[in-house]
Amino acid sequence: MTTAELPEDTLVFADECKAFLEPYMPPKKGSGTASDIAWTTLTFATSLDSQLALSPGTRTVLSGPDSKAMTHYLRSRHDAIMIGVGTVVADDPGLNCRLKGVGGYGEVGLKGQPRPVIIDPKARWNFSDTSKIFCMLREGRGRAPYIITSLAMPPPEKTALLERYGGKFITLPLVTSPDGKEQLEWRSILAALKKEGLESVMVEGGGAVINSLLEPRSQEFIESVIVTIAPTWLGQGGVVVSPPRRFEGGQVIPASRLTSVCWQPFGEDVVLCGKIKL
Amino acid sequence: MTTAELPEDTLVFADECKAFLEPYMPPKKGSGTASDIAWTTLTFATSLDSQLALSPGTRTVLSGPDSKAMTHYLRSRHDAIMIGVGTVVADDPGLNCRLKGVGGYGEVGLKGQPRPVIIDPKARWNFSDTSKIFCMLREGRGRAPYIITSLAMPPPEKTALLERYGGKFITLPLVTSPDGKEQLEWRSILAALKKEGLESVMVEGGGAVINSLLEPRSQEFIESVIVTIAPTWLGQGGVVVSPPRRFEGGQVIPASRLTSVCWQPFGEDVVLCGKIKL
Repeated sequence: MTTAELPEDTLVFADECKAFLEPYMPPKKGSGTASDIAWTTLTFATSLDSQLALSPGTRTVLSGPDSKAMTHYLRSRHDAIMIGVGTVVADDPGLNCRLKGVGGYGEVGLKGQPRPVIIDPKARWNFSDTSKIFCMLREGRGRAPYIITSLAMPPPEKTALLERYGGKFITLPLVTSPDGKEQLEWRSILAALKKEGLESVMVEGGGAVINSLLEPRSQEFIESVIVTIAPTWLGQGGVVVSPPRRFEGGQVIPASRLTSVCWQPFGEDVVLCGKIKL
Repeated sequence: MTTAELPEDTLVFADECKAFLEPYMPPKKGSGTASDIAWTTLTFATSLDSQLALSPGTRTVLSGPDSKAMTHYLRSRHDAIMIGVGTVVADDPGLNCRLKGVGGYGEVGLKGQPRPVIIDPKARWNFSDTSKIFCMLREGRGRAPYIITSLAMPPPEKTALLERYGGKFITLPLVTSPDGKEQLEWRSILAALKKEGLESVMVEGGGAVINSLLEPRSQEFIESVIVTIAPTWLGQGGVVVSPPRRFEGGQVIPASRLTSVCWQPFGEDVVLCGKIKL
């Protein structure tokens, strides 16, 4: 494929922007980490008031064009990208990598295209052949999704459609959390990905998935955090990133603190990279 | 006063850190701006989830030691510093400037000491001679506060104590806002300061004061915004900075956007400077 044949939506991420991200990237594929779970990067873009969107089910463009290219560069560095069902239903996203140089964008095959993973405990996503993710796939520009669900037997017609494209459902048990909610467990999700050969995953959203991963009992699974902050206040009532409160000796304490921090101005935005302080 | 006599709590702000702040500073004192209201800088420190504190009435140390020195440098650049009654009651703050080189910290008199201004519509602050602000003042390290209230006749014993130290109550009318709340108006507050010869004010908090100033109808009064962000999530339930929602043509739109933005990494934190985009 020559440059002239690159799809119109191809993104370019400047080499000089990659250096500050490198310390937060997963180990090179096949470097054989001993861990039994996928290496996890948490990444998202918020407003100054820590919001992902003006309201649930809407897509709010927060960060500048450079940020979009960065997101797709990050996707190219992970085996999988993960998103919750709410965001998939609201946005009908392509969930591929549009970076120049990956499969479908200047490279043959699907090299550098991450596996989309959708957290959908009740299998409520009503996808069809016209869902954007499958359109991308038919054009050779993305992979079929793996859907993490709690249903032992997802609807057969969904399973059939998914498998036709090379995707699948992965069934994991619901576990009762300390606060009485039935939910999927992060450890088992990340272990399932690893078992599928997906050594790294970039968790992108939405609010429910992010806040759940930032909970005290799951934040240990986060290897890197990469947050883009736009110089905007969306205003009260949007979709907020803020983990549940944390207590120690009956006292409320900060829910989570980052260490090995790097702040990188990026157009009008800033990119914050860090590691969770455990 | 020699260096040996500097108070123990003296802060030093490195010269090389001042440059990035300069474009956001008020005009030099006496440069005779035509405006009939005080030049207003909004400044505060939040967590990643846009919180000032873990809960109302508690003081949460968020930002690093460099940030504290910056705050006091900024105080030295303003004629007044403003804080809401909630924060004053919760923190009993000194509300002075502890920067090396201002009055009480290496300089004679009160040169460079800003006037504390407290927003206290119902005059509920129960100050006494032992309030920290008056202790500072007796040591020659700060000025007496001006208290903005709606009471035509504040309690006489409070007025007497205040006036003994050189402070005063300033009474302004309550106005009914579009959403039916009775409140002080920002324009009249800032006009009152200007009339007192206070050409610039740094609004520091707490949450209610900040969110009120960021409202659509008052954000035009903000000349500069200086926000420090610490790489911490406090967790749901703290004191959040997030202005009321804004609508345009029945649609929710971002409440406020900054322009002329500068992000300055600062220890583990970042400092965001900007102007309100009107």
